[in-house]
Amino acid sequence: MPELRKDPIVGRWVIISTDRSKRPTDFVRESVKNKGGFCPFCPGQENKTPPEVLAYRPNGAGRDSQGWTVRVVPNKFPALGIEGSLNRSAEGMFDNMNGVGAHEVIIETPEHDATLATLPEKRIEDVLWAFRDRMIDLKKDKRFKYVMIFKNHGTAAGATLEHAHGQLIALPIVPKHVLEELDGAKQYYAYKERCVFCDIIRQETEAGVRVVSENEGFLTVAPYAPRFPFETWILPKKHESAFENSSSQVYESLARAMKNLLQRADQVLDNPAYNMVIHTAPVQEGPMDHYHWHLEFMPRLTKIAGFEWGTGFYQNPTPPEEAAKYMREAKIKSSQPVTVVG
Amino acid sequence: MPELRKDPIVGRWVIISTDRSKRPTDFVRESVKNKGGFCPFCPGQENKTPPEVLAYRPNGAGRDSQGWTVRVVPNKFPALGIEGSLNRSAEGMFDNMNGVGAHEVIIETPEHDATLATLPEKRIEDVLWAFRDRMIDLKKDKRFKYVMIFKNHGTAAGATLEHAHGQLIALPIVPKHVLEELDGAKQYYAYKERCVFCDIIRQETEAGVRVVSENEGFLTVAPYAPRFPFETWILPKKHESAFENSSSQVYESLARAMKNLLQRADQVLDNPAYNMVIHTAPVQEGPMDHYHWHLEFMPRLTKIAGFEWGTGFYQNPTPPEEAAKYMREAKIKSSQPVTVVG
Repeated sequence: MPELRKDPIVGRWVIISTDRSKRPTDFVRESVKNKGGFCPFCPGQENKTPPEVLAYRPNGAGRDSQGWTVRVVPNKFPALGIEGSLNRSAEGMFDNMNGVGAHEVIIETPEHDATLATLPEKRIEDVLWAFRDRMIDLKKDKRFKYVMIFKNHGTAAGATLEHAHGQLIALPIVPKHVLEELDGAKQYYAYKERCVFCDIIRQETEAGVRVVSENEGFLTVAPYAPRFPFETWILPKKHESAFENSSSQVYESLARAMKNLLQRADQVLDNPAYNMVIHTAPVQEGPMDHYHWHLEFMPRLTKIAGFEWGTGFYQNPTPPEEAAKYMREAKIKSSQPVTVVG
Repeated sequence: MPELRKDPIVGRWVIISTDRSKRPTDFVRESVKNKGGFCPFCPGQENKTPPEVLAYRPNGAGRDSQGWTVRVVPNKFPALGIEGSLNRSAEGMFDNMNGVGAHEVIIETPEHDATLATLPEKRIEDVLWAFRDRMIDLKKDKRFKYVMIFKNHGTAAGATLEHAHGQLIALPIVPKHVLEELDGAKQYYAYKERCVFCDIIRQETEAGVRVVSENEGFLTVAPYAPRFPFETWILPKKHESAFENSSSQVYESLARAMKNLLQRADQVLDNPAYNMVIHTAPVQEGPMDHYHWHLEFMPRLTKIAGFEWGTGFYQNPTPPEEAAKYMREAKIKSSQPVTVVG
């Protein structure tokens, strides 16, 4: 009998197929492989991108020159325009506003063939600092209510360039799925007077069956009601609503948690394409007791998702307990010890 | 400057790219073509499917024999199981229940190569009656709170068999995206004391720019804040919350509206893969003044949707006014006259 499970934050019911559960090798897998060719993100091509807005350049060389380890540039084909006022207006019963926002690309490494899974932890930490520094800068612009940071890895996940990069979009509105998460967390808090994510961390640590790995700062788990097979969340153990307000130790242990997760995914799922998103509080709001920033990782294993696409209702062929077991048991270099109870 | 537009029902903001707007030929199009081979939905293969639950068989022959025009069978690989009780239970802070539900396939025609766009209107009407008859039957089972009817056409849209068919899933819960639509419509009604869909029909008819076509019962429009390029809605002009409670004239004119839309889409977008979903009220509820059933049509033109998939935030490269113009101006057989104002 399949199972219906409810996400405790947003209240979404998901079908979890338990009968004919899909193992990692059951998916049509398209291992991400680089093809090479001209790349505007490689060192020496700095003039092929718009002028940089941030770079870490240990050699101290000038802007838009070589020698950087992380480089942030405006997207050449931005979804939104940076200039102008919002001009909210009505069109009869409808509402619109100018598409004002920022759309930036975080080039994560100068090496064309490196990935977040293969970079040293220290260099992943630099990428996290770049995310933070850009958020801190963009939130000064009061037009921007939300900063979305995400990563598409592999063409199957929507990446158009293969050189490792993340994306950042600053928006004049809070996206609907973020509002839903905020509202759900607020309702839980109103009833329990506890953060729903803190409760999840406590329960998952105790249950153990959905834990993938853990370090002193982060818990990596398959969520109870995942939309996608092998969906995995990385949750900071210490309550904090805003990614950009974290202490430096947090970025250090998040870098380790990310490398750990991505190495496991590469091993279990054969270098899958994936999407990764940082879920964080709206940038113009103060600290929230009810919301807890975190990172969501979604490998792209199901080539076609007609069911979900058409209906908005999710069917997941791999129970999270099984996904977590595969991920937990993956043999990786320098893996942290995992304690599993139950 | 791109534009941000808000869907007036669910409150979702969407980026509409107006600068580099994508025309129909700008998309990587994969025209749906049948490959043939063995098909369990073809006449003569009735024993290859589970026993039928409904069929229209003008020749009066027996069950699971040939001679049918529409045939409904349980899905051989159902997402949910029909037997058993719901058994709602808790797993600590989490909620689950047995995956009880029905999952049926509506085989829309005995002809392997026919599509809803090529079938005579009368035969499309039969398909609509089959949807209705199954809903009426399934809602007698009080375990089922919602009946979702949808169609995936083409492998790119998630269809695994090419023979024209729709799907029906009866669920013990109301899916989240349906609840959102119901809640949004309810809020609008609480404030305006008018149905938001009725208001959309009035305003779109007057504005004309997003109208694709119209007949005496239905208005076919590109919505104001579409998630996908060439997304199109078919709205019944007469207020009614439940698809299955419509009068027979309604199914007759919906069949015409559907054929009209699908012929236009086939011409403008070169036989695209698509998803189609009937949005209707939960089956155990009485008539609602605030909700209005309708049909949503989403061609699958953007091969990869990394942006949306990762972020849950939509970017649409074709403004609905342009999409509607292409669709409206398509030359099709027996097209209804369209009056466009403004």
